[in-house]
Amino acid sequence: MAVSRPPSIRSILNHGQPGDAVMANGWVRSKRVLKGFAFLDLNDGSSMQGLQVVLDEALPAFAAQLNQLGTGASVTVHGDLVASQGKNQRIELKATSLQVWGTADPQTYPLQKKRHSFEFLRTIAHLRSRTNTLGAVFRVRNACSHAIHQFFQEQGFLWVHTPIITHGDCEGAGEQFSVTALDLHHLPLTAQQSIDWSQDFFGQPTYLTVSGQLEAEIMAMAFTHVYTFGPTFRAENSNTSRHLAEFWMVEPEMAFCNLQGDMDWAESFLKFVFRQVLEQCADDFEFFNQRIDSTVLETAQLIIDQPFERMTYTEAINRLEQCDRSFEFPVAWGIDLQSEHERYLTEDLVKRPVIVTDYPKDIKAFYMRLNEDLKTVAAMDILVPKIGELVGGSQREERLEVLQARMQETNLPGEDYWWYLDLRRYGTVPHAGFGLGFERLVQFMTGMQNIRDVIPFPRTPMSADF
Amino acid sequence: MAVSRPPSIRSILNHGQPGDAVMANGWVRSKRVLKGFAFLDLNDGSSMQGLQVVLDEALPAFAAQLNQLGTGASVTVHGDLVASQGKNQRIELKATSLQVWGTADPQTYPLQKKRHSFEFLRTIAHLRSRTNTLGAVFRVRNACSHAIHQFFQEQGFLWVHTPIITHGDCEGAGEQFSVTALDLHHLPLTAQQSIDWSQDFFGQPTYLTVSGQLEAEIMAMAFTHVYTFGPTFRAENSNTSRHLAEFWMVEPEMAFCNLQGDMDWAESFLKFVFRQVLEQCADDFEFFNQRIDSTVLETAQLIIDQPFERMTYTEAINRLEQCDRSFEFPVAWGIDLQSEHERYLTEDLVKRPVIVTDYPKDIKAFYMRLNEDLKTVAAMDILVPKIGELVGGSQREERLEVLQARMQETNLPGEDYWWYLDLRRYGTVPHAGFGLGFERLVQFMTGMQNIRDVIPFPRTPMSADF
Repeated sequence: MAVSRPPSIRSILNHGQPGDAVMANGWVRSKRVLKGFAFLDLNDGSSMQGLQVVLDEALPAFAAQLNQLGTGASVTVHGDLVASQGKNQRIELKATSLQVWGTADPQTYPLQKKRHSFEFLRTIAHLRSRTNTLGAVFRVRNACSHAIHQFFQEQGFLWVHTPIITHGDCEGAGEQFSVTALDLHHLPLTAQQSIDWSQDFFGQPTYLTVSGQLEAEIMAMAFTHVYTFGPTFRAENSNTSRHLAEFWMVEPEMAFCNLQGDMDWAESFLKFVFRQVLEQCADDFEFFNQRIDSTVLETAQLIIDQPFERMTYTEAINRLEQCDRSFEFPVAWGIDLQSEHERYLTEDLVKRPVIVTDYPKDIKAFYMRLNEDLKTVAAMDILVPKIGELVGGSQREERLEVLQARMQETNLPGEDYWWYLDLRRYGTVPHAGFGLGFERLVQFMTGMQNIRDVIPFPRTPMSADF
Repeated sequence: MAVSRPPSIRSILNHGQPGDAVMANGWVRSKRVLKGFAFLDLNDGSSMQGLQVVLDEALPAFAAQLNQLGTGASVTVHGDLVASQGKNQRIELKATSLQVWGTADPQTYPLQKKRHSFEFLRTIAHLRSRTNTLGAVFRVRNACSHAIHQFFQEQGFLWVHTPIITHGDCEGAGEQFSVTALDLHHLPLTAQQSIDWSQDFFGQPTYLTVSGQLEAEIMAMAFTHVYTFGPTFRAENSNTSRHLAEFWMVEPEMAFCNLQGDMDWAESFLKFVFRQVLEQCADDFEFFNQRIDSTVLETAQLIIDQPFERMTYTEAINRLEQCDRSFEFPVAWGIDLQSEHERYLTEDLVKRPVIVTDYPKDIKAFYMRLNEDLKTVAAMDILVPKIGELVGGSQREERLEVLQARMQETNLPGEDYWWYLDLRRYGTVPHAGFGLGFERLVQFMTGMQNIRDVIPFPRTPMSADF
């Protein structure tokens, strides 16, 4: 039986020296048979590069095992590291013994050497992580997740788990999924023939959360600096390469912070995350740059090195009106910026990330802080090349009366928000935060075309497999 | 306006020196007015201890501000650190200016100095994090979360996000919540008068996940070492101090690993997490030990210092049969261990954590690896004092035929598990994993009686507030 903690192939490749006796576990990616010996490319998912294993025909059971060692077979190899003659690797593993755990019938195993479309790979999401591209994506996804935690933990933020099951759509962010423990075939009815929610698990209609922001504000009013990092949901029937019904969001919230501080936090956050991931996943980035999108390295470097441009919405509108580009959606003060506008600003006008601030209040959420002009709110969006909006944030309205007036304007029922209003009644402070769609960040980093290929098991209209 | 990154009070208390000019933000916990000056206890949630602020009557607006500075008021203080005369703190902040952001009317603000019951505090979950106990709980919760990530990341595990919305109850773990985008008041029906799921968002009935294990196995078959850390759900109507409808689970999964390795991983994992949290939250642990449960420090030390006992289920049953204790539930080989049995084993018999292994197959899940005796499976539960089962894990059945036979025995439809079976068809390997209920861990660490007090916004029968 295998011991539990042999070194990973990544660690053997990085730290192994000729002469080291090692044991390696993994799956065969390919096999080359030459006269008297054979090479295996062994991969355990810890790195893009595999470990070259040399099998000599003098090995016991060489011939019998060779047949079993097709693509996809799982093995444990004991042997000694030797300097490699090949130019693709520094070292290789000369096997002294080999155990085959499982084979993979080449007649039916779908992952043979030929290239597969990402569409096809989605239908075998239980196997696709064994390919180079998806392997790289999920290593980057992990590194990115961890960098997010590292950034906030080092800065003294608390990770707070906001609820997934909620009883209301707090910001009107879109259609929600219902959650119920009632038997849908026999819904209990009231005397008035409407659904008797008092018999449901929570005694009321409940939904999947669209954002943890309002609850994060609660926690920021006790711990000053907090962040959420968890799943959120939209029941929008958007069958696009940029939408998921289930996706992960990062939502930091900072007390004693204004819009300026919010932008500073968001910018240093993004720079940190890109720097960390680029360092940890250098090989994977190289791969994306070669095979998926030849601008991802350049873009990452742009994020890391260049200060983000900052301009107000009003200035952005002026620039859009003055430019010689013709847009599908006409430009005028008061419009919501469309993707074409956002991309012009970041890609053509400033050629780097740009933070647009102070949007008209009528196109933004009720909780954003009203500016002194009474027309705009202290909102900010970070726009980046190719993607458009990557981050959306704002300073929150901390003044009770102004918030109540905004809620009335937007027809929000104050009684549902009694606790949100309480935060303004008791020890209110200026505070701000932002939201980042995690999959969109991974998509941006890797250059992957379809967001369904940066999450292990995507949930989209008509699809909830695995 | 406040700048965005003044030092936290924790950092001022730890690193500040007399003579340093600092700025501090926070909420007033209490105020003492003496002749000619006043003391504030200022807390920003970064630590149990607050910063003592000294206000001299010579300050501008001293008298006017003093009235605003009740419990709960939010302030920014500029001033100089001085050595404190008091014996409760090394340093204090002598204010040179003070800004009051928000007040808290003592007539209505519920968090006055008197003690509140945890039941009452749950009704004001939007404010309870400002109390000493809940503040400490959520700092420990965060430290514990981060320690979990640290452990796995340092060991080369990938954090994988398994889906929340699933289409089946994969292990029969209990009642599930339904998720739907259909209008519940007008459910579409088929010609046979059953619900027409083809019109729902995913084209089929969907549920909230009860475990990410099976998907984690998929990922382990590509990356060797992975873990999940995310929300899971049970629609069980259990109104107890140990059950939540929504809770977070940690589920590592290791390829090329047997039951022995599984136990080794779980034990070193728990030791690491306790060590980290104890170090990072020393004050909070001290507080729990004094105010909540006088055994928490001793228990943490036990986890860290003592190797866990290991015994088979069969041996455990023998010990239970031989002991002079009379149990409510009679002991016989084949029974599921009850809480009283588990607690006897860990609290009285071995007096430290004990890992019980090799349970009868009939009381365990279909995916656990069948032992050579054909009667037991390679399962393990870690039992700890006061809580009973803290961790449950197993080696997984990697042999296709054995797994299929077990599924038939337990009437599981093979067609729903085609992808799970594929993992055994293509490059199968011995693998193992375990599951840990995160809130139960935090409850165990802190000694909190009710699990509803270790999660910010608990979801329980008839309760989904905030």
